[in-house]
Amino acid sequence: MTDLLALTAELVDIPSVSHDEAAIAGFVESELGRQGFLEVTRLADNVVARTALGRTLRVVLAGHLDTVPPAGNGRARLEGDRCYGVGSVDMKGGVAVLLALARELVEPVYDLTYVLYACEEVERRYSGLAAVDKARPDLLEGDVALVLEPTASVVEAGCQGVMRLVVTTRGAAAHVARPWMGENAIHRLGAVLVRASEFSDRRPVIDGCEYHESLQTVWAEGGSRARANVVPDRATALLSHRFAPDRDAEQALEAISALLGPALDSAAGDSIEVEEVDAPAPPSLGHPLFAALVAASGAAPRAKLGWTDVSHFAGKGLPATNFGPGDPGLCHHADEHVSRGELETAFSVLRAALGRL
Amino acid sequence: MTDLLALTAELVDIPSVSHDEAAIAGFVESELGRQGFLEVTRLADNVVARTALGRTLRVVLAGHLDTVPPAGNGRARLEGDRCYGVGSVDMKGGVAVLLALARELVEPVYDLTYVLYACEEVERRYSGLAAVDKARPDLLEGDVALVLEPTASVVEAGCQGVMRLVVTTRGAAAHVARPWMGENAIHRLGAVLVRASEFSDRRPVIDGCEYHESLQTVWAEGGSRARANVVPDRATALLSHRFAPDRDAEQALEAISALLGPALDSAAGDSIEVEEVDAPAPPSLGHPLFAALVAASGAAPRAKLGWTDVSHFAGKGLPATNFGPGDPGLCHHADEHVSRGELETAFSVLRAALGRL
Repeated sequence: MTDLLALTAELVDIPSVSHDEAAIAGFVESELGRQGFLEVTRLADNVVARTALGRTLRVVLAGHLDTVPPAGNGRARLEGDRCYGVGSVDMKGGVAVLLALARELVEPVYDLTYVLYACEEVERRYSGLAAVDKARPDLLEGDVALVLEPTASVVEAGCQGVMRLVVTTRGAAAHVARPWMGENAIHRLGAVLVRASEFSDRRPVIDGCEYHESLQTVWAEGGSRARANVVPDRATALLSHRFAPDRDAEQALEAISALLGPALDSAAGDSIEVEEVDAPAPPSLGHPLFAALVAASGAAPRAKLGWTDVSHFAGKGLPATNFGPGDPGLCHHADEHVSRGELETAFSVLRAALGRL
Repeated sequence: MTDLLALTAELVDIPSVSHDEAAIAGFVESELGRQGFLEVTRLADNVVARTALGRTLRVVLAGHLDTVPPAGNGRARLEGDRCYGVGSVDMKGGVAVLLALARELVEPVYDLTYVLYACEEVERRYSGLAAVDKARPDLLEGDVALVLEPTASVVEAGCQGVMRLVVTTRGAAAHVARPWMGENAIHRLGAVLVRASEFSDRRPVIDGCEYHESLQTVWAEGGSRARANVVPDRATALLSHRFAPDRDAEQALEAISALLGPALDSAAGDSIEVEEVDAPAPPSLGHPLFAALVAASGAAPRAKLGWTDVSHFAGKGLPATNFGPGDPGLCHHADEHVSRGELETAFSVLRAALGRL
């Protein structure tokens, strides 16, 4: 029986900030290669391992190998039955569970595909999962997908969409001693930021799952530190909007435009541009495997608030959901951690739902 | 008689963005060196030329050699009797007048000191004038100072103070899908920017001159473009405050703190820090030379709104004022320009006030 906490710590101790996953991909490739019944394929820093048992249905199990940059927590630290460290909960704990399943599910009910990939924590254009799908779409074929992002071993159904918007305000440059000759683009952006902070968080319920939308400004910039005598003529903010799966991207953009519009003046050259959209995924709770997983978990399913790669699988036509070990509220926190109990619960539920008992 | 427009164009065609004034300093040094009655001293990219006629009073005439970076206007362009180009009005026109005075005022009423210096358009710590004063304070000794910044040949008395303030707001990082676990520092800065935009511009009248205060955010930054999943925990703005000479720095800071205070939470770690203060200078219109200059100009004196190096001379105990060619409202504009008439008027008034008629 795999020591899931020790394996998680071992994975945390292999640094794997996005774009730097070669070492951890090598580790995972070697681990999976030991199971003679798995066909292992490595593509760049992405690894796919598949059973070929001729089962009627194939389940894809997916997890990302990369982490956000460490915040003083670059090494694994064990405290009792907890493992701390960057990526511990997001999502090396899930990767550990996935590797343990690959070792132990020798005779599963379904054919299984394990996908471990790079660059989930950065812009979607770098996604390792998307890269595999582009190069070898056959490797990702299946009937249903599970993404092992942390969900505290509860079925977290579907995912919210992500829309990144660039808001630009324009002004007119002038000397700061005579600002009335110009117009301050940063001051105009201030009104946009205040309106963004007043976003009213919609919480629609779908398939019994309550989603929770959000709007956050993640980056803002205007003017120049070196030109402190100049009224700035341009300021920019990058906003991240999470929207529930009852809306499509167009509806989401309409809502944000209505919120920010009163602070913007298109005649002055202000603009809202959509930089990137990752579609939301519906809960798909009608699928029998998800019903079995809900039953094995012993908990009511709930909405996934973060965006995850279930969106990618949903886009390919595979019903997909999230299920993995650990508290999703700890993702990207400096004190993120995962416990032995959380790892073992996720493992047991997945083994029950996927394996021959 | 010097062709002031041609000389201005010649000076504009010598690029001299701050920190890159060697070529123009060389030109000026060579020009002044031709007048045998001047003692010329070069210190780095600063040039001082002095008469030694044993007059009772010495007048210091000062002008900076540097410009802000060009905005598509790096070369001189003559249109009729106007010269366009970066620095044309701020203040190569003034430098041209100063060089012409040095050529033609062979027998002035006062002893004269011409000071042409680098790095006026950047942070005060780089100031060429301050560097000369530190290395050779004797070169800047005198009884009264005139700074040839553009004033449309009107005595623009004293100058407003400049205070640069760094405002920092703090929040708490979290994943953008669960922003209620953190707090958005950029959204909190938005409220500061809106308050800054609501600055009520005080316009005190001193010695008959109406000043006009201002508060502008010249730079703002928060969060990270590369970490678009993270609620930002820090945002910063650089504000430039111009304050009238009836207030000292402490009073100015009190006023700004009172304005921005309601948007800041010191318990959360928010702060206002004074990064740099350049003192204001009083109008000093009681001085006889200034009275003569006002009379020769034929116009009522008015307040100088921008900060200029009259502040430096006032700090040394020299009554100082601004008087130079061109429209000060054009400073740092892409279409800045100066006309032959403006140059000749400034030259004539100064020659009348300083020279033996």
